[in-house]
Amino acid sequence: MDQPELHADLAPVAFLLGTWQGHGKGSYPTVQTFEYDEEVRFWHVGKPLLSYTQRTWHPSKGFAMHSEMGFWRVQPEGRIEIVLAHPTGIAEIQEGRIEDTKIEVGTTSMARTTTAKEVSRLERTFTVDGDVMRYEVRMAAVGVPLTHHLSAELHRVEA
Amino acid sequence: MDQPELHADLAPVAFLLGTWQGHGKGSYPTVQTFEYDEEVRFWHVGKPLLSYTQRTWHPSKGFAMHSEMGFWRVQPEGRIEIVLAHPTGIAEIQEGRIEDTKIEVGTTSMARTTTAKEVSRLERTFTVDGDVMRYEVRMAAVGVPLTHHLSAELHRVEA
Repeated sequence: MDQPELHADLAPVAFLLGTWQGHGKGSYPTVQTFEYDEEVRFWHVGKPLLSYTQRTWHPSKGFAMHSEMGFWRVQPEGRIEIVLAHPTGIAEIQEGRIEDTKIEVGTTSMARTTTAKEVSRLERTFTVDGDVMRYEVRMAAVGVPLTHHLSAELHRVEA
Repeated sequence: MDQPELHADLAPVAFLLGTWQGHGKGSYPTVQTFEYDEEVRFWHVGKPLLSYTQRTWHPSKGFAMHSEMGFWRVQPEGRIEIVLAHPTGIAEIQEGRIEDTKIEVGTTSMARTTTAKEVSRLERTFTVDGDVMRYEVRMAAVGVPLTHHLSAELHRVEA
C-alpha cells in the first residue's frame, strides 16, 4: 500500500503527525511520584482520522509501564473526538477542541471491564510548538477529585 | 528494551501471539457484501495482557478499510476481557471465555462519541488451529438484530 494523501479534514491536526519521544513525570495522591520515558505515534491512512499509539517505560530499568491506543476523529468547527483503549480495562471517549496547535479534551463517556479500576474522568491538554509537544493530564479516580496526574515533553523524532 | 519473558498468566492465549494475514468477507442487511485483506498483530510487553492491532484494506485497490486496536486482558478461570477502540467512534468492552484455542466474546459495555453510528452489540468467535486463525463476527446495529457480519481466515506470517 502506498501512503495515501492526507485527508483534507486532517489539516487542523497535521501538526501531530509523526513519532514523538520524550520524558514525563506522574503524581497522584494515591501513588508515589514516578518518571517515565515515552513514545507517541500519530499516523493516517487517508481517512479523516488519526491512528494513535502511546507507550511508556521505566527510564532506567526499561520495563513497560502504561500504553494506550486509539483514534482521533476530527470534526467540524474545531471539535475533536478521541476513542481510546487503555490496558487498565477502560475504553474511553474524550471530546474537546482544537485551537491552533493546542488541543483540550476531557472524558465524555467510559466503558469498563468487570475488573477495571474506577477512573471517573480524565482531562488532557496538548500543546505543540514546532517539533516539541507538551501535555498535561488531570484525573479523577478511586474517590480523588480531578487532580494533576501527568506532564511530559516530547520531541518529534520522525515526521 | 529487550523482549521480556511472557507473563505466566498469558499461557492460555500464547497461541495468538504474532502477526497474522489473510482474507475476509463481510455482509450486513444494510450494506453490499464486501471482501477485504487483513493483518492482525498480537504482542506482549511482559504484563498479563496482549496488545492488539488490526487493519483491513481493499483486496485489489489497496485503500484502508476498517481498523481497531486495544488490549486483551486474561483473567482467572478462562475468562478474558477485551478493551477495543474503533475508528467509528466506538470504545468497546468485550468479555467472554477461552476454551483451548477457541475464544468467544461479546460486548458488555460501549461508549460512543457524539457522531458515532449506533452499534448495540458485537459477538466474536476466534478459533486457532496451529498457524491458521478463523473468526466470525455477529453484529446488532442500526436497528438490525444480531446478524452474521464478518468471517475471515488468517495465517500466521511471523511468530
